[in-house]
Amino acid sequence: MIVVMKQSARRPDVDAVIARLQELGFDGQAIVGAERSVIAVIGQVYPELQGELEVLPEVHHVLRVSSPYKMSSREVKPDDTIIEVRGVRIGGAETVIMAGPCTVESEKQLMTTAREVARQGANVLRGGAFKPRTSPHSFQGLGKPGLELLAMAREETGLPVVTEVVDPRDVELVAEYTDILQIGTRNAQNFPLLQEVGRSNRPVLLKRGLNSLVDEWLLSAEYIITQGNRQVMLCERGIRTFETGTRNTFDLGGMALAKELSHLPVIADPSHATGKASLVPPMSLAAIAAGANGLIIDVHPEPEHALIDGPQSLDFPTFEALMTAARTVASAVNRPLQAPIAV
Amino acid sequence: MIVVMKQSARRPDVDAVIARLQELGFDGQAIVGAERSVIAVIGQVYPELQGELEVLPEVHHVLRVSSPYKMSSREVKPDDTIIEVRGVRIGGAETVIMAGPCTVESEKQLMTTAREVARQGANVLRGGAFKPRTSPHSFQGLGKPGLELLAMAREETGLPVVTEVVDPRDVELVAEYTDILQIGTRNAQNFPLLQEVGRSNRPVLLKRGLNSLVDEWLLSAEYIITQGNRQVMLCERGIRTFETGTRNTFDLGGMALAKELSHLPVIADPSHATGKASLVPPMSLAAIAAGANGLIIDVHPEPEHALIDGPQSLDFPTFEALMTAARTVASAVNRPLQAPIAV
Amino acid sequence: MIVVMKQSARRPDVDAVIARLQELGFDGQAIVGAERSVIAVIGQVYPELQGELEVLPEVHHVLRVSSPYKMSSREVKPDDTIIEVRGVRIGGAETVIMAGPCTVESEKQLMTTAREVARQGANVLRGGAFKPRTSPHSFQGLGKPGLELLAMAREETGLPVVTEVVDPRDVELVAEYTDILQIGTRNAQNFPLLQEVGRSNRPVLLKRGLNSLVDEWLLSAEYIITQGNRQVMLCERGIRTFETGTRNTFDLGGMALAKELSHLPVIADPSHATGKASLVPPMSLAAIAAGANGLIIDVHPEPEHALIDGPQSLDFPTFEALMTAARTVASAVNRPLQAPIAV
Amino acid sequence: MIVVMKQSARRPDVDAVIARLQELGFDGQAIVGAERSVIAVIGQVYPELQGELEVLPEVHHVLRVSSPYKMSSREVKPDDTIIEVRGVRIGGAETVIMAGPCTVESEKQLMTTAREVARQGANVLRGGAFKPRTSPHSFQGLGKPGLELLAMAREETGLPVVTEVVDPRDVELVAEYTDILQIGTRNAQNFPLLQEVGRSNRPVLLKRGLNSLVDEWLLSAEYIITQGNRQVMLCERGIRTFETGTRNTFDLGGMALAKELSHLPVIADPSHATGKASLVPPMSLAAIAAGANGLIIDVHPEPEHALIDGPQSLDFPTFEALMTAARTVASAVNRPLQAPIAV
Repeated sequence: MIVVMKQSARRPDVDAVIARLQELGFDGQAIVGAERSVIAVIGQVYPELQGELEVLPEVHHVLRVSSPYKMSSREVKPDDTIIEVRGVRIGGAETVIMAGPCTVESEKQLMTTAREVARQGANVLRGGAFKPRTSPHSFQGLGKPGLELLAMAREETGLPVVTEVVDPRDVELVAEYTDILQIGTRNAQNFPLLQEVGRSNRPVLLKRGLNSLVDEWLLSAEYIITQGNRQVMLCERGIRTFETGTRNTFDLGGMALAKELSHLPVIADPSHATGKASLVPPMSLAAIAAGANGLIIDVHPEPEHALIDGPQSLDFPTFEALMTAARTVASAVNRPLQAPIAV
Repeated sequence: MIVVMKQSARRPDVDAVIARLQELGFDGQAIVGAERSVIAVIGQVYPELQGELEVLPEVHHVLRVSSPYKMSSREVKPDDTIIEVRGVRIGGAETVIMAGPCTVESEKQLMTTAREVARQGANVLRGGAFKPRTSPHSFQGLGKPGLELLAMAREETGLPVVTEVVDPRDVELVAEYTDILQIGTRNAQNFPLLQEVGRSNRPVLLKRGLNSLVDEWLLSAEYIITQGNRQVMLCERGIRTFETGTRNTFDLGGMALAKELSHLPVIADPSHATGKASLVPPMSLAAIAAGANGLIIDVHPEPEHALIDGPQSLDFPTFEALMTAARTVASAVNRPLQAPIAV
Repeated sequence: MIVVMKQSARRPDVDAVIARLQELGFDGQAIVGAERSVIAVIGQVYPELQGELEVLPEVHHVLRVSSPYKMSSREVKPDDTIIEVRGVRIGGAETVIMAGPCTVESEKQLMTTAREVARQGANVLRGGAFKPRTSPHSFQGLGKPGLELLAMAREETGLPVVTEVVDPRDVELVAEYTDILQIGTRNAQNFPLLQEVGRSNRPVLLKRGLNSLVDEWLLSAEYIITQGNRQVMLCERGIRTFETGTRNTFDLGGMALAKELSHLPVIADPSHATGKASLVPPMSLAAIAAGANGLIIDVHPEPEHALIDGPQSLDFPTFEALMTAARTVASAVNRPLQAPIAV
Repeated sequence: MIVVMKQSARRPDVDAVIARLQELGFDGQAIVGAERSVIAVIGQVYPELQGELEVLPEVHHVLRVSSPYKMSSREVKPDDTIIEVRGVRIGGAETVIMAGPCTVESEKQLMTTAREVARQGANVLRGGAFKPRTSPHSFQGLGKPGLELLAMAREETGLPVVTEVVDPRDVELVAEYTDILQIGTRNAQNFPLLQEVGRSNRPVLLKRGLNSLVDEWLLSAEYIITQGNRQVMLCERGIRTFETGTRNTFDLGGMALAKELSHLPVIADPSHATGKASLVPPMSLAAIAAGANGLIIDVHPEPEHALIDGPQSLDFPTFEALMTAARTVASAVNRPLQAPIAV
């Protein structure tokens, strides 16, 4: 950390800061500049120190020099983390496609979709059983019966399953039925839930919070990793900005930055990011070109009858066309689509 | 709802929408305009209907006509809700002051502060025992021993206590020790937690999410109310915007709008909104002038030694000066500070 | 500036940065920390240096230590700037009210409003002749005839006049007719226009850009001041955020911060900030309580017939009630409303 | 437009709105719903009408049904606009690369860069002569001598030139020397400047405002088109959001939406959007995959000595590698890079 003094600070003010630092077990090195003095803090700092120093007299502000995250940083682990789920390798040289309905609605809807996305070459099946909805008056998902349907679909198609968990009390139950635990955007800073999935041995798909800085997203990953679970994927799904023409703002620059700063795999969710089926194909290709290790796509047999998020769901022919285009673009950037598992 | 057709839509497209509406149990009334046609949906609509209609052919978009919330709306209950907590009336003609340390650190720190804020006329004691921290490496609060200290402080000062709960599994425990359950900004859309406090009989201080629209804030309140707990206070504590000069952007306009739309009391938290002690007094007075039913303020005996949020905490002399100024401004707008309870 | 090296940097990398600094006429002082090294730059830096250093090998990033603005900073001039306009003192111990129609529509509309706001005690008359409109299909203001009407209203009421200028080629013309030149939010970074008003001898009301950081707002003021015109008022009128319930987000915290950092007077515009007449009175009082040196308010004889911004304009009875309340609150915070000039 | 009445509205309130509409030359059709009544406005509405209706008694709010822009909309002109500049076709089946230094610094710097980008296959040369800088203390560009250098570079390489104009008084001068006039992000709503370039016969590269909605971006284009100049390209260069890890947030979803709504070509500027050279290649490929008609890239012979925006400039080897990758991805999405003009 660097303590920046006010212009009005005098030598005794600088000395007082250094004395306080020593009291706290650090060393301080003063540099007297043209306009003002600064003090470099020597030692293994902790985040709170910033506030503790900012309240001292004649201190202007305190600058952080290091990233607040450790375990998710490439400075600690330079090489990419690869996560393996029932034979699917996420984070390596190949691109992975996760697809399925936003929400599990019925056996027929799920099984039809699961078969179709498997047929088109998807690697993972997505589907929501517990849905966090903005309004309490909206459909909240099927719950446990939804999990059972997902397990049935996995049985038939061989696709590993990713589904959201919203309550720390449900982690064990959801982990029993599925292969990847999804943390949704509204729970990106639900720390008890992060810790609970961190104590599970299931890989986690961690969606970025609607208002999370890239740094905070990595800190949320850190909550999971520090509990012992290192199998975390970062999922960019759009942030909230002033723009209302799209549902959210798809921050592919933020995703590329996360990949540069962290060794964890990054997955892109163009369906929730744009909220508009017509924008999903171009944004899917963009995400692959930007370096995503995978995509997660909403697909529905009849988007016009979907209970949730119909406007952003692809129908089967559009998904098929997207897979063809994705295959070409992924190869063009030397991260070909991963071949689906033979069942 | 209003279905807006594309300019290219023809009569059969309009008829198809109306047929679909009738299939779903609604009526549709077409209006042929100069540029395009629109269809008014007649009947008791549900939020999902919007998406179901937007995917129909030749539909441009669908506009919502009504607010999505009901129980928290003034259209349903025009008169102000007043919440009573151990003799303190929140939401009525008088302004209430909640104050105390951001975090309970020790018996001495809490008791000193509790006595001082009581002496200055605060009505409620605040203090955090469970702290949601962005980094897992930061101090997470004292937990249960913190709750016990809060109960001890209440015993001595007579002030009711507000403290945060972050885990649905802790609601019962926290409710046992405190008078008001606080839902923090990161949990504003943690729906299992909202439902759990909705099943408690304790009043709830619901902080606005960093990225919550006013409408979504009221929907979060709705989650609590629909479980049977109508004692909800809305707390504006700053939203996240591009401005980084202040910790958050204190949205007093959004607070005033919430008060106009909803019958629930509104509380302002200038400490977390600005993150800077020097801005807390002017913003406190601004909040009172804007119509806040109460303030919640971070106070610490030695901000320079606070474990959390020292830079935004007021020391005792500054808090005393603020109380004097607040008293004058609150009287000037005819919502005088509520007299503290005699112990 | 502080150069933060990567963790992988070695001594020769640090030496290379110091050598480059010396080449550029600076000194560099290395501090070897627990995790990484940093280098303090000694000398009178310029903003571009940051980029020049960030591209050097093994540099992680470069931190700015000082504010980029000088002339508008309290570090350069600690005492408040007071601007005098035809006997009205802006920036001193008293609060000033500017009021009038958003747009000059007709002689009758302007004169009626001017007389009324004068009668209620306003100090300055506002009114737009050149209007920057988002759509080219919208009414663009009366232009020069509008200026003539404003001059006529000043003649009769004695109130100095503030009006917007949108084109550098119009500055001379507008300055001829009015007392204060307003720079609108869309022109907050229109640097040729800022420089042109900087070469005029008229006081300037500088609205904050919809997306301006407080720092950038002060830099825009700096553009005017460096041309020789020190009579700049900062006007907070709302920033653009994700919230759509209000027209903009009224950032009173940012206004208070600007007042803390700068010696220039701050004026608040609750009309444009909220876009909603019902929110203007509470936000006006809030702005006064937050320390605004003045308010600027849209008033219209018949808001329901206003050509522009009717929904945010106060009618006469509401403005009268607001003036009464403002008088009380301004006195309560010891910055009473300035008595209007006797004509 | 649709007028949404309050729940408390009665029949006479509805009738009053319809009477007012008829007074203004419209028709109104009332629809009585379950919860409230709405009134459809029949006739050719203008944007101001919304405000005029929102102030009527018992009106809740007024919804706009049509887009506010016309000339830039696909509803008016469904087929893509193609702009031809000295043999380069922008907006057609091929992807165009614009590249060059952010700022013209010297003859040597410009000529070296121009030759290199031409050699690598760029189609257009970019370079700034008039620079809008946030601080008045920063380098403002070479001005007219910069334009002369650009013309010289065009002479030698045959590449058409794009450069920014910041002052309406300079449009004629800049148009004399260059082929494409660039409107920068800070001038996206500088209406006199937009109108001036609209009166020129040069194609315009219109950057999106830092805080422009897609709708407002198209309205800025409308300002140019309504003056007679239909040769407008839309350039996405990042918007301002809460994220600070990248310089701006590159909104490729907004770009794709603009392309869907408008017939104008879309160009992507990953250099300014990310502000970080390491993110420019992945974001360039992403933009092509998302459907951009072209890219505009900062290239500098020695980024570490650039006067402006060095951290985001590519050096020659990186640009060469990017061109190779771009060629592959552009072909993969069937919009191959346009062959450079033979000189």
